Amino acid sequence: MSAARGQIIEATCELLELQGYHATGLNQIVKESGSPKGSLYHYFPGGKDELTAEALQHVGQIVLRRIHDGLAEYDNAIEAVRRFIVSVAHNVERSGFRAGGPITTVAMETAATNERLRAVCEQIYSGWRDAFAARLMADGYAAPRAARLAAVIIAAIEGGIILCRTGQDTKPLEDVALEVEVLLKAASATR
Amino acid sequence: MSAARGQIIEATCELLELQGYHATGLNQIVKESGSPKGSLYHYFPGGKDELTAEALQHVGQIVLRRIHDGLAEYDNAIEAVRRFIVSVAHNVERSGFRAGGPITTVAMETAATNERLRAVCEQIYSGWRDAFAARLMADGYAAPRAARLAAVIIAAIEGGIILCRTGQDTKPLEDVALEVEVLLKAASATR
Repeated sequence: MSAARGQIIEATCELLELQGYHATGLNQIVKESGSPKGSLYHYFPGGKDELTAEALQHVGQIVLRRIHDGLAEYDNAIEAVRRFIVSVAHNVERSGFRAGGPITTVAMETAATNERLRAVCEQIYSGWRDAFAARLMADGYAAPRAARLAAVIIAAIEGGIILCRTGQDTKPLEDVALEVEVLLKAASATR
Repeated sequence: MSAARGQIIEATCELLELQGYHATGLNQIVKESGSPKGSLYHYFPGGKDELTAEALQHVGQIVLRRIHDGLAEYDNAIEAVRRFIVSVAHNVERSGFRAGGPITTVAMETAATNERLRAVCEQIYSGWRDAFAARLMADGYAAPRAARLAAVIIAAIEGGIILCRTGQDTKPLEDVALEVEVLLKAASATR
């Protein structure tokens, strides 16, 4: 990927995460990326929706790798999941509560109004959920239960990020980390 | 509250829930509410932010009453919470996955960029969390644990709504309902 193209995508990811789809204009992306306006239309002839779809897929892949790597760090799946959630809380705090949930805002803004971007967000969430489910299955959870638990983990992390950013406090995600551990242990006992 | 004022607030709530803060313009609010433009400025001299803050508080109160009423319907808190989450899933489905999470989008759009609206969203989430915590305490959960569980319930519902709307499917919130029941039972056993 060319440097200019990469810079445009990076700038778009940051702006989408900070303020969402509707607030982010092409002029602001051009300005933040330091690229000439012509290069934006050169690389993304489909305009804002094409660029947004690519930016979402880019950041979705980054998060997916982070999930894979994070969940591989500990032998025990429950420990790995708990620590991953705590690391999300730290990342949100480190950004000054300005980042976290890189696709959440766009997912909600476009779910009912932009079929193309809705489908991209759905695909990204599915990928993340499958990564958590695979890790739980590797530790012995049955496939349907692992999928259900993974959906709940994604939901609780997404919602926890909203509460952390809104309250400018890491506590909600720390609460999620602790209670997800309790849940996974309880689910483990009945598997 | 005058009919015109109420119509303006209702229209604003619906548009914020459908598409968020930035996509919602005053002209669209005027059009959807069927009110003359002058009445918008008459009732909300502070403009879009004043109107948005009032609309959020309005819908926040409606949800708070729904939580109170829903959680009072069953003697058992665990059963009440599970059924409340299922009712959220039904409401999202009934809207054609266009509604649900009436403050989520605005919360994420404005958390880092609009201090006034951020503070309003924080206050609304606190009120909802306190309502769940009070119901859990009434069933014998200790106060700190009840507060933690309530934060996780709000997070999982908020995130579950995002997944349901994005995937146009009620399954994620049904998963949340089932696993929150498992969590509350496990927490109950250790209280």
